[in-house]
Amino acid sequence: MTRAAFEALDQADELARLRDLFSLPPGVIYLDGNSLGALPKATAARVQDLVNRQWGVDLIRSWNTHDWIGAAARIGDKIAPLIGAAPGEVIVADSTSVNLFKLVCGALALRPGRRTILTEPGNFPTDLYILQGIEAWLGDQVQLRTMPRGALADAIDADTAAVVLTHVHYKTAERWPMAEITALAHRHGALAVWDLSHSAGALAIDLNAANADLALGCGYKYLNGGPGAPSFAFVAARWQDQLASPLSGWMGHAEPFVFDDDYRPAPGIRRQLCGTPGMLGLTALEAGIDLFADLDMAAVEAKGLALGEAFIALAEARLGAWGLELASPKAADRRGSHVSLRHPEGYAIMQALIARGVIGDFRAPDILRFGMTPLYLRFTDIWDAFEILRTVLETGEYLQPRFSKRAAVT
Amino acid sequence: MTRAAFEALDQADELARLRDLFSLPPGVIYLDGNSLGALPKATAARVQDLVNRQWGVDLIRSWNTHDWIGAAARIGDKIAPLIGAAPGEVIVADSTSVNLFKLVCGALALRPGRRTILTEPGNFPTDLYILQGIEAWLGDQVQLRTMPRGALADAIDADTAAVVLTHVHYKTAERWPMAEITALAHRHGALAVWDLSHSAGALAIDLNAANADLALGCGYKYLNGGPGAPSFAFVAARWQDQLASPLSGWMGHAEPFVFDDDYRPAPGIRRQLCGTPGMLGLTALEAGIDLFADLDMAAVEAKGLALGEAFIALAEARLGAWGLELASPKAADRRGSHVSLRHPEGYAIMQALIARGVIGDFRAPDILRFGMTPLYLRFTDIWDAFEILRTVLETGEYLQPRFSKRAAVT
Repeated sequence: MTRAAFEALDQADELARLRDLFSLPPGVIYLDGNSLGALPKATAARVQDLVNRQWGVDLIRSWNTHDWIGAAARIGDKIAPLIGAAPGEVIVADSTSVNLFKLVCGALALRPGRRTILTEPGNFPTDLYILQGIEAWLGDQVQLRTMPRGALADAIDADTAAVVLTHVHYKTAERWPMAEITALAHRHGALAVWDLSHSAGALAIDLNAANADLALGCGYKYLNGGPGAPSFAFVAARWQDQLASPLSGWMGHAEPFVFDDDYRPAPGIRRQLCGTPGMLGLTALEAGIDLFADLDMAAVEAKGLALGEAFIALAEARLGAWGLELASPKAADRRGSHVSLRHPEGYAIMQALIARGVIGDFRAPDILRFGMTPLYLRFTDIWDAFEILRTVLETGEYLQPRFSKRAAVT
Repeated sequence: MTRAAFEALDQADELARLRDLFSLPPGVIYLDGNSLGALPKATAARVQDLVNRQWGVDLIRSWNTHDWIGAAARIGDKIAPLIGAAPGEVIVADSTSVNLFKLVCGALALRPGRRTILTEPGNFPTDLYILQGIEAWLGDQVQLRTMPRGALADAIDADTAAVVLTHVHYKTAERWPMAEITALAHRHGALAVWDLSHSAGALAIDLNAANADLALGCGYKYLNGGPGAPSFAFVAARWQDQLASPLSGWMGHAEPFVFDDDYRPAPGIRRQLCGTPGMLGLTALEAGIDLFADLDMAAVEAKGLALGEAFIALAEARLGAWGLELASPKAADRRGSHVSLRHPEGYAIMQALIARGVIGDFRAPDILRFGMTPLYLRFTDIWDAFEILRTVLETGEYLQPRFSKRAAVT
């Protein structure tokens, strides 16, 4: 393995042209696009137009003239092909946490008499917390059950209302076999709810091929929608007119501008809307999504996995000597688009890397995450980042007091 | 009454200097700041900095270095003095609809054994819809009861868990006596939940003087936070550590970055956070809120009411002849900062006004609303708008087919 070999991979990369669509700071190798995606160059001008012209000049009229009112569904329709959904099956609204709440409450109501929500321990915290909140509020009607990955399939039974899983694990990048688990849930009469936060925009997800019921995901990771971008929700067409949202806000009403006293849910996916959509967040998200317009998601997935493959190959020979351990599956078909390593001094190592411009992130207690974002990373970035990792570890630079552990915020 | 007299009012207006802080399009008299506040001149640069420098260059590090993580509480603390709250009693999160859901569910849990949520018919639709959603979601434990304004006080009883009202009515601008109703609720052991959407930033609200329990409001009206800006939630200090949120997302966790499997609510107001905060919306909202930093809210309220007074005085003599009726209270102390008129052809009249650059809005079936925003309107704007209203009505211009009724979206 040589840097020249990695340069050759960049030469052959059909997605290489996409890097130029992003604004990336000099001196930085950004391996954290799985946490906050980088800024598309087109975004600033679109947000500026939203602020100065649409809001500033056209004011309230923009709900019609600039179709603010249609933005949530329009952007949803642009996300749909990235996740194997049909037009009208996806909408953008609220946060991932709020959408999970809506969809799981809705799923429970579709499975009366069944009490169990099934998930895995160590799922992304907000998923666990939201499910715990539903359990606390609905009392005896609901019981949250967590089963480790290996035992989860066998735990699906006649009391299971919904199986709620994150497609790609936020720490390990381990991938659930979506079609298989969904089929198993259906065999027992349960619904499958997928959190796509760590896979949408990176993997070639096919919700409808997997026969998934409900899904949701994050706009600010691989979709490059900006910090705290709104989330998206998917409801399979067959469920849309039966699925009630507990968050029955006015934007989900059949005719919000009739100002009726009585809630009547909109037909289709629109009933998953709740409050007035935040147009600044939606505008930035749309600019991020538009970069995917003509992309083949299979090629996007293949590149992300190949970047991870390259990183793992570089690491493998040296991991033992450095006290590091691969925390992600080695097999590409069981992995998402990030690679995690484990080290007791993970926090300090990541701080030392960041000080040298290699930005990944740390997840307590010992995980170093490296995001292999297929749209703007080059194979040579992986090579160069790895050389810096080598320096940090071999010189013991990370042992300097300035990198020592304190509360990590991100 | 002459235009010169209105000019004199502008001369004497101590808030007149604020108009220059807003970007207002030429040829427009904007009387819809009660629906979507105008653009502060400072906002574009602050959003641009957020996008280009904080997101684009500093990337994920900005959660710490630009204190994104503290923005929701910081902006809440800036809203607090505008509504008579103490530091640490207000936080910015989610939408008005979502915050109402959280706070009313929380209030119900604080009043076990009581089943009734009390509100008025004709309350803003999303308030009614969210309460209907809670009723449907929590089943037999909850019953939503609507009582007309005149009969509501007598309907508060030992089964009332929460009285949920909008301080200023979105159609009529009628104002509830907050302290009085809150005291009455407390006398019966109920909590008072106030929706401040149509009063925050316009009236001198004093939640703590009124002994209010919970409140929430809208960021995109008088606070000028931009289309779909995030909402704020107030929880009186005495309730904060007892009030549970059903939307127990990770940002409300005591230590979100420990990535624990078990939810432990943060102390204080922070447990009302749910998902990752949307930084574009928060940044624009903060720019809007910052304009209030040194303002005396009593003076702000007085100006808004005086603008309304002037509009009503102009209208009064002619309303009958034009088939119009005042839909707002005449007495300033019973009115918020907008004035509504009623006309069977209200839709067409508003369209004709908008075509001439006077932007108010229409609320079905027959309400014309005119927002008297105290920060950027002049008394002469009211005079000039009224002259245009006179033209539209006296010439019968609004009867032209191009102004005839179709579905109003905003």
